Amino acid sequence: MLLRMSSLFLRTLRDDPADAEVPSHKLLVRAGYVRRVAPGVYSWLPLGKMVLENVTRVVREEMDRMGGQEVLFPALLPREYYEATGRWTEYGDTLFRLKDRKGADYLLGPTHEEMFTDMVKGEYSSYKDYPVTLYQIQTKYRDEARPRAGILRGREFVMKDSYSFDLDDEGLKRSYERHRETYIRTFDRLGITYKICFATSGAMGGSASEEFLAPAETGEDTFVACHHCGYAANAEAVTTPAPAAPTGERPALRVLDTPNTPTIESLVAHLNEHHGLDVTAADTLKNVVVKVTTPGSDKTEVLVVGVPGDREVDFKRLEAALAPGEPAIFEAEDFHRHPGLVRGYIGPQVLENLGIRYLVDPRVVEGSAWVTGANEPNKHAVGVVAGRDFTADGTIEAAEVRAGDACPACGSELSIDRGIEIGHIFQLGRKYADAARLDALGPDGKPVRVTMGSYGIGVSRAVAVLVEQRHDELGLLWPREIAPADVHIVGTGKENQVEVATRLAEELHARGLRVLVDDRAGVSPGVKFKDAELLGMPTIVVIGRGLAQGVAELRDRATGVKEEIPIAEAADRVEAACRA
Amino acid sequence: MLLRMSSLFLRTLRDDPADAEVPSHKLLVRAGYVRRVAPGVYSWLPLGKMVLENVTRVVREEMDRMGGQEVLFPALLPREYYEATGRWTEYGDTLFRLKDRKGADYLLGPTHEEMFTDMVKGEYSSYKDYPVTLYQIQTKYRDEARPRAGILRGREFVMKDSYSFDLDDEGLKRSYERHRETYIRTFDRLGITYKICFATSGAMGGSASEEFLAPAETGEDTFVACHHCGYAANAEAVTTPAPAAPTGERPALRVLDTPNTPTIESLVAHLNEHHGLDVTAADTLKNVVVKVTTPGSDKTEVLVVGVPGDREVDFKRLEAALAPGEPAIFEAEDFHRHPGLVRGYIGPQVLENLGIRYLVDPRVVEGSAWVTGANEPNKHAVGVVAGRDFTADGTIEAAEVRAGDACPACGSELSIDRGIEIGHIFQLGRKYADAARLDALGPDGKPVRVTMGSYGIGVSRAVAVLVEQRHDELGLLWPREIAPADVHIVGTGKENQVEVATRLAEELHARGLRVLVDDRAGVSPGVKFKDAELLGMPTIVVIGRGLAQGVAELRDRATGVKEEIPIAEAADRVEAACRA
Repeated sequence: MLLRMSSLFLRTLRDDPADAEVPSHKLLVRAGYVRRVAPGVYSWLPLGKMVLENVTRVVREEMDRMGGQEVLFPALLPREYYEATGRWTEYGDTLFRLKDRKGADYLLGPTHEEMFTDMVKGEYSSYKDYPVTLYQIQTKYRDEARPRAGILRGREFVMKDSYSFDLDDEGLKRSYERHRETYIRTFDRLGITYKICFATSGAMGGSASEEFLAPAETGEDTFVACHHCGYAANAEAVTTPAPAAPTGERPALRVLDTPNTPTIESLVAHLNEHHGLDVTAADTLKNVVVKVTTPGSDKTEVLVVGVPGDREVDFKRLEAALAPGEPAIFEAEDFHRHPGLVRGYIGPQVLENLGIRYLVDPRVVEGSAWVTGANEPNKHAVGVVAGRDFTADGTIEAAEVRAGDACPACGSELSIDRGIEIGHIFQLGRKYADAARLDALGPDGKPVRVTMGSYGIGVSRAVAVLVEQRHDELGLLWPREIAPADVHIVGTGKENQVEVATRLAEELHARGLRVLVDDRAGVSPGVKFKDAELLGMPTIVVIGRGLAQGVAELRDRATGVKEEIPIAEAADRVEAACRA
Repeated sequence: MLLRMSSLFLRTLRDDPADAEVPSHKLLVRAGYVRRVAPGVYSWLPLGKMVLENVTRVVREEMDRMGGQEVLFPALLPREYYEATGRWTEYGDTLFRLKDRKGADYLLGPTHEEMFTDMVKGEYSSYKDYPVTLYQIQTKYRDEARPRAGILRGREFVMKDSYSFDLDDEGLKRSYERHRETYIRTFDRLGITYKICFATSGAMGGSASEEFLAPAETGEDTFVACHHCGYAANAEAVTTPAPAAPTGERPALRVLDTPNTPTIESLVAHLNEHHGLDVTAADTLKNVVVKVTTPGSDKTEVLVVGVPGDREVDFKRLEAALAPGEPAIFEAEDFHRHPGLVRGYIGPQVLENLGIRYLVDPRVVEGSAWVTGANEPNKHAVGVVAGRDFTADGTIEAAEVRAGDACPACGSELSIDRGIEIGHIFQLGRKYADAARLDALGPDGKPVRVTMGSYGIGVSRAVAVLVEQRHDELGLLWPREIAPADVHIVGTGKENQVEVATRLAEELHARGLRVLVDDRAGVSPGVKFKDAELLGMPTIVVIGRGLAQGVAELRDRATGVKEEIPIAEAADRVEAACRA
């Protein structure tokens, strides 16, 4: 491949786009890789298309290597398939829905579990057919509430999704492990740094679902890591170790006057100062009211969540815990409609009588005593004991996770970082097979319900993640396998530099390298250098003023290391640098 | 690539699908290449995906070779772009429209002229930037009224579309010619037989638009060809040579009683028998009333079309001539509302007074005399002279084209065939550049309006067309470059045939061939042979009963030629056959 800047469809921009906040968005637009068409909807220009294609190729090669078989589903899907599993409604506003000319309902596929299950059911019938792993690399659609960050979180995006079909749990585990290894190999080849994190608290065991998170300041996901035992988990999936239940006599419940204590801090100070107590925020039980709707249902449930007063409710953890239910803030008017809930003074003591569901943080164990609201203005209760003065309807992982919290695996301190989800592997089990009645005829003639795994890689997102993790103040820094070209040759000067640069480009192209040559006339050296830094090919060669002395400059874009090389040896030296 | 039937995700079917009418639909489903998801919406199974990928690769390589630069647009597009050119409404029901969660209007791109124009406008500004050719290979959406024939005419399909941008008409012609040559090379490589046909009567000259039509009985397009001069045209684009205007005295207009003459035939017989005339159907002027609506408008226009009575109105030609207007049959109730139009006895003499537009076949030249309706029941008029007794508002190409009609280029007889459109090249001109105000700053500092060409190849359709043109009663017949594999090795028998077949497959795979081996246990020879014929790899090798004698069978799938080859030489012989 030999690209010439003189004809390449490319304009680099000097300024960041006005709507861009994250580095990948700024740089991919400035460097002319992508262009915005609508919120979360982008076009790929030639250099961007090449990068996207290179990422796609790596993903495909690794999927083929593990024995995955490639298929391709439509994006336009009839409602029936998603009706059968309830996702037509469960997906809520995130689903793009449309009608055809006859009024039939369609959707734009956000993920294809239903379709893959149906396909396997259509083709396979005997236990001898299994296991099988199918995958596709395809355009997907999700009407995100907040499309952001360019191609990092688009509404139209490219994804690799694969599905394993096995006859038993052992088989599923093997398929899952093979995907895990494939993902490790894939992301290593792509040059993305990642952390494999538990993704749900795991009804099927701890390894039932893991996310590959790419650490990045701009990430929307928060994850914890334990440097002692290696545990890592998405914050949404972190489990809170329950303390031992207290034994011995429990304190009596007392209601105290606590005027002017609108915050936990002021409450603690008041209690310690005026009532002779010695409590901290961690001894208080904060009760947060939310209303929960479920897509496809008209009902709204009022729910109270109890967490220790020294922690906020983490709304993302709350959402994950309640999914597909969607929690929303309980507004002033909602309180008005529920006079039993005394805003600022809610205690769980009355919730059972009010018929309101109450879920608590796992730290609220049977027998633990709390300071909490007394359900009257300006009054709090102390010595409110779980299991005696109130009974929770269950626990919920909704309290924020903090650096220094105990690792659920070993008890050491956890660290917290932000990351971007680039891959997700998940032991689905039989949910979709049950919905589609996907059975294999067993060796004994009896049907065996198939068990599935679901595995995704964000292909277009990976392009953005590579930029988030690899860039500097000058521009992009592609790994060689992903870069649009191996080498960017800049010819600049008033003699025959452009001619020499072009000849070198042709020579390197003949040797099988992918070459971009800046052969533009009437463009200043400064502009050419800036473009070369911005565009981010791993190797840069400058044929410039040194030409008279028979030398060129060879630069490594990532390290910034420069060296002079004799023009006569340029082709050999550049080739060696590119093949190193 | 080494595929094993024992693990390949594939089930062949014995019976044609119930809804299939054309060979490509039947065979691609039976051979397990595609599966139906919804009307006009298909999934690709592994072998189908490989074929689709092979076609895509050929198209991409040829586009790259001509200097096209690949980009990728979204399929989900905001309404604004198509509003500006009027196509949001002009497309009518064929456009898939949807709203996002905020109520904004979107469409699924049926074609991308607007987007490409906008992209070039966004990046380029100077005349030095031009010319440029951009292309994409992408999934497109059209809500066809009658999706049919499997992937031949889908509602979701893969297309290569490209656009050339030039500064002047000469440049556009060059870009057009280069595309024409590229398409010739592409379809030749794909192994598709085609005819290049004029596609419109050509306001910009005869070569402004051409279609590549693949001759096939199942084609929806009709095209004419002249074996004398090489002229070929889609029937919609065929122009009718106008005869010379008659000179000398014209007959007088006479109204005659013509009872019981409901058909042209009976009218001609009656006139010749009872009125002493000597006329044929070709001397009569048949007036067909239609109502024409325009997408986005509430108005319906009544239009009368006059054609010689020996020809039917060809509704597809009529539609093409009136586009984007949409003609519909004038029903009994419509006649009821227009009493001036006497059904069965309409003559053009009254149309001007009725304020109804009248368009005539080009054969209806000034001065020509016709037998036509007298606008009274049971009466016809003879000697009705164009330009004297009525004045048409223009001509229209709506009369059917027939084998034996005169070639508009040389006057020889035309033949007629059916074909499938696989490519279309079109000198768009400045329509979209005007809408987007796409200008280049000229060398003199003045803006130059850019002129465009638009070029398409139906990529997924090409897969179906290959089957329409290449199959036999046993199954598919892929050309080597497009086939999923070079060779299909069948191992069958109770000795070690499968083992030998697998070893040969591995050896050929190591030599760089793409190999499919039937290594299934417990499957009869008959089933394996049938599958090999059905799946259509160009070369078939059978390791069967001959193994004991040290021979295998080498078959050419297309010609059916078989020969025995020594097992010891099998790898060499098969490789030679595949590389021939």
